[in-house]
Amino acid sequence: KDSYSITLLPGDGIGPEIMSATVGVLSALTSRCGFELEFAEALIGGAAIDAVGDPFPDASLERCLSSDSVLLSCIGGYKWDSNPRELRPESGLLKMRKSMGLFANLRPAKVLDQLVDASTLRREVVEGVDVMVVRELTGDVYFGTPKGIDVVDGELWSSFLAFGRDDGVGGGSGVGIFVFGSQSYSSSGRKRVGYNNMIYREDEIERIARVAGDVASKRSGRLCSVDKANVLDVSQLWRDVVTEVISSEFADVELSHMYVDNAAMQLIRYPKQFDTIVTGNIFGDILSDEASMLVGSLGMLPSASIGDGIGPGVFEPCHGSAPDIAGTDKANPLALILSAAMMLRYDLDRDEEATILERSVEAVLDMKLRTADIKQEGDGCKLVGCIEMGKAVAEVV
Amino acid sequence: KDSYSITLLPGDGIGPEIMSATVGVLSALTSRCGFELEFAEALIGGAAIDAVGDPFPDASLERCLSSDSVLLSCIGGYKWDSNPRELRPESGLLKMRKSMGLFANLRPAKVLDQLVDASTLRREVVEGVDVMVVRELTGDVYFGTPKGIDVVDGELWSSFLAFGRDDGVGGGSGVGIFVFGSQSYSSSGRKRVGYNNMIYREDEIERIARVAGDVASKRSGRLCSVDKANVLDVSQLWRDVVTEVISSEFADVELSHMYVDNAAMQLIRYPKQFDTIVTGNIFGDILSDEASMLVGSLGMLPSASIGDGIGPGVFEPCHGSAPDIAGTDKANPLALILSAAMMLRYDLDRDEEATILERSVEAVLDMKLRTADIKQEGDGCKLVGCIEMGKAVAEVV
Ligand SMILES: CC(C)[C@H](C(=O)O)[C@@H](O)C(=O)O
Ligand SMILES: CC(C)[C@H](C(=O)O)[C@@H](O)C(=O)O
Repeated sequence: KDSYSITLLPGDGIGPEIMSATVGVLSALTSRCGFELEFAEALIGGAAIDAVGDPFPDASLERCLSSDSVLLSCIGGYKWDSNPRELRPESGLLKMRKSMGLFANLRPAKVLDQLVDASTLRREVVEGVDVMVVRELTGDVYFGTPKGIDVVDGELWSSFLAFGRDDGVGGGSGVGIFVFGSQSYSSSGRKRVGYNNMIYREDEIERIARVAGDVASKRSGRLCSVDKANVLDVSQLWRDVVTEVISSEFADVELSHMYVDNAAMQLIRYPKQFDTIVTGNIFGDILSDEASMLVGSLGMLPSASIGDGIGPGVFEPCHGSAPDIAGTDKANPLALILSAAMMLRYDLDRDEEATILERSVEAVLDMKLRTADIKQEGDGCKLVGCIEMGKAVAEVV
Repeated sequence: KDSYSITLLPGDGIGPEIMSATVGVLSALTSRCGFELEFAEALIGGAAIDAVGDPFPDASLERCLSSDSVLLSCIGGYKWDSNPRELRPESGLLKMRKSMGLFANLRPAKVLDQLVDASTLRREVVEGVDVMVVRELTGDVYFGTPKGIDVVDGELWSSFLAFGRDDGVGGGSGVGIFVFGSQSYSSSGRKRVGYNNMIYREDEIERIARVAGDVASKRSGRLCSVDKANVLDVSQLWRDVVTEVISSEFADVELSHMYVDNAAMQLIRYPKQFDTIVTGNIFGDILSDEASMLVGSLGMLPSASIGDGIGPGVFEPCHGSAPDIAGTDKANPLALILSAAMMLRYDLDRDEEATILERSVEAVLDMKLRTADIKQEGDGCKLVGCIEMGKAVAEVV
């Protein structure tokens, strides 16, 4: 196959700028390497809310599903921040992940030699760091039910609590009932209660463990699974299932386990101890962002969200939409360009071209070109805008 | 009042060593300052499991509750790591917190000038950092029900999921039902499912918001509440209630909100932006450990766990029990000594004596004494053991 359909989701803020820089780079790459990419745009995020009142309209979903792969810039902005949750850009992202079955989020945090001084950590601590966080993306407390904010009567509450405790819910009894009735409210003593269910089924854990095992075996073979099994039942199941999958299916992978609080420390204390990390949705949200800060330059970090390997994945930078610099040609397109490299590798099976793209990004850094976010005082580098940076990469591919 | 009863919980690993160093320091302090502390020991953690088969026996609870304050070293060790959860040292800690009503955990992360180079972060980033994390300690997914690991039939599972979605559970409907029945299992397609309920009642949020407001107003007045309100209902309630409490009761406190993933980044990117942070139990577990790593020297960090202000609080270091160096006189007693200072301040209302203790710790650092964990190559300091460090502090109080 040498022609692929790519859905572009430019999104909000700096999204359209970095997307057009990236499309320029991809066009240069395809004409050099002799394959074709057909691009078609679709709406997501604030742009979609403004245009059609839905942060991820069905038309966008259909277009994504019918293409070979999806490239997403970034979403969000102050403008939509006080909307009700279902009309917020983030909800579009969650809907996209769930409806496209993107259960695995790969977030590499690799410190480039050229940018080691962008980190707030000491050079000797971060030099050579190369961590891959594999985050589960469609389960956990993000999507668990029941959930909500209810109003309960004080006494009803006490009896609920007593029930929860005395009846031995959990602990293997196999029966749990969770009821908030609207029946017996009294006007006094009403209290709000907010809840989300942190829940994983074993097949959800199995499939992310397989992705992580696969990723780890193609890297150094060291996999660290992060959970809170000393406190949470859902983590105990996570730990058991990850252990089962890795030990039975990945003889070459060396598995270790770490509690999430310790992992948050160890990432700062001695990040080089990690190669591949696998963890659930919420812990992964926190730890992958923390890991990306080791690199210092969020503007350099790509990510891949993939599913069963049959449908398309979504490739996007880790950074946000930076509404304050939108439209000023100050954005850094490199993270989106590196996301396109991940797309070539994971979805289009074009490893060689992915590597060309990654080398090209290193090349422009070696040419001492820097956007504002990665420019250091006195580094002797040239400050360039988004357009010029894009052109520079396109020239060297 | 000039005589207080203190329960000592030496715990496991290096616990007994650092406790005896700290008791030596407190004895010197009381004789210098003219008040009395009566010490009595009780069991917790692995030591309690070995002695009486319970990680926090009722006798310990009673002793704690009947004293003016409680000083705890640290718990845990490899020996008990594969015990069933209820026979693990951590369970004793959780039981202690819940049964003593210790809903607020205060964890200061203050970078001392003398130890700035112990941090893996660049000097200019961490110099002067002084963050206080106020973590809720008796709610959230730590204690929420229902919880457990169940086995469900594949089909039952699908109908449960469909129910959860279609019935509009959450989102304000006020009715949620969560059932795992043992009735209709088929032998094929059985799956395990693990779940814990992330849940907060508004009164639980109110009381921790009051503690945080109080702490912030005695510090710089800046309070940052951390949640995941863009995804979680429980976080939306958290955000609403914290906003209500602070705006109506703490006119002098400036409140901001941050998502937990961003907070994990910002703590590394620019930690000086934070003064007081307030957050839930699990986010606080992660972020307070991350914040403590800014300081670099976990062996220096105290914490306070307090309740309604009537019963006693528990004061303990942030570090673990370091079983590998237990009994070798290599442990650093300073975090426990600083925890005793917090005890004097919060529980015994002896602010002056607390300050004396804190200054004494700084004094021995100025005298260039260092235990192994805070010794830097070429720092020109003298390496001392736990006993010598304790004596040195006792001499200068
Ligand atoms: C915007 C938000 C819903 C999202 C998440 O929490 O997953 C983001 O933080 C991310 O990591 O992609
Ligand atoms: C040991 C563990 C249960 C505990 C917690 O998670 O609260 C610890 O990590 C802490 O922070 O005190």
